Amino acid sequence: MNIVILGSGNAATHFGQQFQKTGHHIVQIYSKTKANANALAFALHCAAIDQLSELDLHADLYLIAVTDRAIVSLVEALPKDIKGVVIHCSGATDLSVLAGFKNAGVIYPPQSLSKNKAVDFSTVPLCVEGNTDENSAALLQVAQTFAPRSIFCNSQQRLAIHLASVMVNNFTNILYQMAYELLAENDLSFDLIKPIILETAEKVQNHIPITVQTGPAIRQDSTTMQKHLQFISNKPDLQQIYQLLSQEITKRK
Amino acid sequence: MNIVILGSGNAATHFGQQFQKTGHHIVQIYSKTKANANALAFALHCAAIDQLSELDLHADLYLIAVTDRAIVSLVEALPKDIKGVVIHCSGATDLSVLAGFKNAGVIYPPQSLSKNKAVDFSTVPLCVEGNTDENSAALLQVAQTFAPRSIFCNSQQRLAIHLASVMVNNFTNILYQMAYELLAENDLSFDLIKPIILETAEKVQNHIPITVQTGPAIRQDSTTMQKHLQFISNKPDLQQIYQLLSQEITKRK
Repeated sequence: MNIVILGSGNAATHFGQQFQKTGHHIVQIYSKTKANANALAFALHCAAIDQLSELDLHADLYLIAVTDRAIVSLVEALPKDIKGVVIHCSGATDLSVLAGFKNAGVIYPPQSLSKNKAVDFSTVPLCVEGNTDENSAALLQVAQTFAPRSIFCNSQQRLAIHLASVMVNNFTNILYQMAYELLAENDLSFDLIKPIILETAEKVQNHIPITVQTGPAIRQDSTTMQKHLQFISNKPDLQQIYQLLSQEITKRK
Repeated sequence: MNIVILGSGNAATHFGQQFQKTGHHIVQIYSKTKANANALAFALHCAAIDQLSELDLHADLYLIAVTDRAIVSLVEALPKDIKGVVIHCSGATDLSVLAGFKNAGVIYPPQSLSKNKAVDFSTVPLCVEGNTDENSAALLQVAQTFAPRSIFCNSQQRLAIHLASVMVNNFTNILYQMAYELLAENDLSFDLIKPIILETAEKVQNHIPITVQTGPAIRQDSTTMQKHLQFISNKPDLQQIYQLLSQEITKRK
């Protein structure tokens, strides 16, 4: 399959590498910033362009891998007579933004991608949607060549997965950070809680989270909870988060 | 060292096994429920008692491994002329509850212990405190025989570690559960986000959390955040948690 990649960031890099590894041909990398296009094109041994007028109009797949905010303006600037399948890889963007194209779809990876860190696509599912059954099937086939756990899902389901990912990634990470700060304020190393962080994430690989819930809230140990709240009496925001999350635990008791 | 264990639950089991493995001698297991005392005593090849009147008064170490709530009444019932070191293993209980004993201390593991799951004490630090410098040093030495990363910390520091553990374990786990429910409501499997859960926990093993923060809040992507809040418009509690945790992320931008 001949593929054009629009974008040169984390998603463009990971998808470019995977497509190439699985026998596809990357034709062009487009970026408004030529240096960025060049860098990824060099790594993938293909052409770099910074003008949409130079776009190869005969590719099979056009992957839009730019920030959510940039998708709409890029879509408006693309020629509408493209015959290949135009896809984006955003979790929070509806397929309908690509309504102007005959063939369109989405391949969204619910994983935090960084250019410098390998992603194990043997475990990461890609969430695939096409504007026709045929396109859905074709995209799922492409996705499954390197990500065997890929699945179909519609735009609403994809938004649910995106939100769930934010909860278990962005929100857990800020809890890690707040714990880091609490330890630092008490002259303690974050190393102390690294094992429990890992243990907690590993435990839910094989259990439904609520079945392995521990701690004062599930035990209804109000004495300990009061000690904690007293300990952070100078941090009303953390107190509020503590109470809300404890309530969620208690609700499910 | 001759050790008496008071309690027969998760902490009693793990500590009993580790003490025995590292050459110590478990003399007795005490539990108010004889069957529980018997079960652990059988596993550790020692005596089981359910009456404190039968307590061996000549042991070197008395490990109180009962629930936080049960510590005080057990302490009150123990003979005060015990010469060995009396310790508890609670994160949220001050050393001062053991003020009636000549030799006292704490060995607290900031890890979620389950009887049926092995704990890797080569990575888990034990947080040690003694009522004298001598007892602190002796307890640290015992702890380090099986948990080489063990450290000294005072009761306030231990409470900070306990609270930090609640944040990165109990609170992340309820976020996992809420994500699980959100996916289930949209006919999606929790398997989809297991890789990102693990990735997030692994990333902070080598990075300060805030330096690897991703997602709409750190990008100040209010469009995506509005889509998420709209998506959970029937869940005001989740909306509130979403907004509070996003604010914490934004604050640290």
